[in-house]
Amino acid sequence: MTNLLLKNINNDASITGDISEITHLVKDELDKANKIIINNIESNVPLVPKLAKHLVNSGGKRIRPLLTILSSKLCNYNNGDRHIHMAACVEFIHMATLLHDDVIDGSFMRRGVPTANNLWGNKSSVLVGDFLFSKAFQLMVKDGSLKILNVLSEASSILAQGEVMQLSITNNIETSIENCFSVIEDKTAKLFEAATHVGGIISSATEDQNYRLSEYGKSIGIAFQLIDDAMDYNYKNNKTGKKAGADFKEGKITLPVIIAIQKATKKEKLFWKKVMEDLEQDETDFMTAIKLINKYNAISQTIEKAQEYSNKAIKLIKTFPNNSFRNSLEKIANFSVSRQN
Amino acid sequence: MTNLLLKNINNDASITGDISEITHLVKDELDKANKIIINNIESNVPLVPKLAKHLVNSGGKRIRPLLTILSSKLCNYNNGDRHIHMAACVEFIHMATLLHDDVIDGSFMRRGVPTANNLWGNKSSVLVGDFLFSKAFQLMVKDGSLKILNVLSEASSILAQGEVMQLSITNNIETSIENCFSVIEDKTAKLFEAATHVGGIISSATEDQNYRLSEYGKSIGIAFQLIDDAMDYNYKNNKTGKKAGADFKEGKITLPVIIAIQKATKKEKLFWKKVMEDLEQDETDFMTAIKLINKYNAISQTIEKAQEYSNKAIKLIKTFPNNSFRNSLEKIANFSVSRQN
Repeated sequence: MTNLLLKNINNDASITGDISEITHLVKDELDKANKIIINNIESNVPLVPKLAKHLVNSGGKRIRPLLTILSSKLCNYNNGDRHIHMAACVEFIHMATLLHDDVIDGSFMRRGVPTANNLWGNKSSVLVGDFLFSKAFQLMVKDGSLKILNVLSEASSILAQGEVMQLSITNNIETSIENCFSVIEDKTAKLFEAATHVGGIISSATEDQNYRLSEYGKSIGIAFQLIDDAMDYNYKNNKTGKKAGADFKEGKITLPVIIAIQKATKKEKLFWKKVMEDLEQDETDFMTAIKLINKYNAISQTIEKAQEYSNKAIKLIKTFPNNSFRNSLEKIANFSVSRQN
Repeated sequence: MTNLLLKNINNDASITGDISEITHLVKDELDKANKIIINNIESNVPLVPKLAKHLVNSGGKRIRPLLTILSSKLCNYNNGDRHIHMAACVEFIHMATLLHDDVIDGSFMRRGVPTANNLWGNKSSVLVGDFLFSKAFQLMVKDGSLKILNVLSEASSILAQGEVMQLSITNNIETSIENCFSVIEDKTAKLFEAATHVGGIISSATEDQNYRLSEYGKSIGIAFQLIDDAMDYNYKNNKTGKKAGADFKEGKITLPVIIAIQKATKKEKLFWKKVMEDLEQDETDFMTAIKLINKYNAISQTIEKAQEYSNKAIKLIKTFPNNSFRNSLEKIANFSVSRQN
């Protein structure tokens, strides 16, 4: 199944490049968004910008601000720099959740760089996360759109709720596929959805356009997360910066695992119970898990599901003009499945 | 010095009662605010309301929502239930910070009740804190005032910044009184200030009224925190629900400690370094710390400072009509110093 993942990744040269190919089109805007982020993490408490800048410079893909900017441009946005400010807001919320996520997961590395909690401790990461979250709202308030404040405050609360739900299903091998998708939709897809929706709102897009952009965002958010979950069991080719096996180690119940568990023999189910619920894991267990996952084609099924959402996303935006911005959003949809990082 | 604290606490029968005497005046509004809080913590993820309700029912004083309601009434508020919704918003922000604070301080008990992180773990507390924080903004957006959103998003970011600054001065015995006050103003007083300011805003108060209400809030916030810091070294009479010595145990540098350190002999300074910086504490050290703090009248000086802020607060609102609402706000100012819980 690892082979299928590799095949999927490499089957189209045009979509195997990294995200920089797509970001090039709106490089100026992304640079400006980055500057807004840097300027807004200033504080008279030195640790705040120090920690936040470390995160800014840790090489994230900036996929969410990219989505906001491209969505606005697809809707002929021409009302100053609001799209850039909104892109920064969305990234601020994402950064806040990254800091909290790394504390919660006890992560020491992200994208090959030590995490903030690794360098400055959990306490600072929780608090600077709170600071960034507040800053996101301060930026939104400055922009002055209650509609956007509504979309992003709702997205934030759903995101937090999704993370709590993930905690609830962790170590529970009876987790249903439905619950697994609820977590993905809430904790990941909701902010993608808000990112594209906000691009539409500031461009005074029609209701139909806003619907399509939101659903596009949601769909690629789901695709991104599914591939992330698949990559965790792709020990050879995982370049997400997250060590393969991280989810396994914590007993996080993701789609590949649920598929394997649902088809498991009695003996296999006992194995899953031991490693995922009781977290009794020895050094050979991760390889055993991969073997069982591959036995039931769980990785390929997960990728197929991601591909479905990617296709759905592309279909949703077909009603927009066929220009370089739509083309980039289509590339992002492909990238969500093909990505190697 | 403990005696002075007791004397201060008991020297005026009219201000020794608990806060319920003051809350009685706006009981209906506070009950409604409580209902809004309960209704807004509903979620399809059961752990979210479970954990949040535990916090709601853990017996907080509801001092911040009380301040919002009283401030609005002092300004003749008569525009529906906005004051109640705003009171709930302010309390939501406070609840979010309580959850995060207890994680950061590793607290197991609050007000004699196990903390949420004690019962459900740090991860859940961080995430439900994020959820409550988002909910606060959702409620504000529903209300629709950008001015209030501005005040409360700014207060939230300053609050987080103050908490980071507190981390930075923890275990540093060279901390200045100035820095100590910066922390108090940011981490505690800012939300008190916002709570009263918001009461003025929704009542279309004049600029002068808003200024006076804000400064009143800030002043009693400082007084509250100073008394909290003093109570930590009042091992006999501490009824804050926080175990006396909690700050000491973590090496938190508060005003009583700074006063004692600034006057310390060389030998005493070595003691403070050992216990506060190196956190090498044996069972007799807390009593030694109290002795040194009392030797330099640090508790009485801290209480005097709190009394100054309380007096300032009362003076600030003297320009408002002399009615039951102003009277209650004056009582709160007195209570901020006299309180035993």
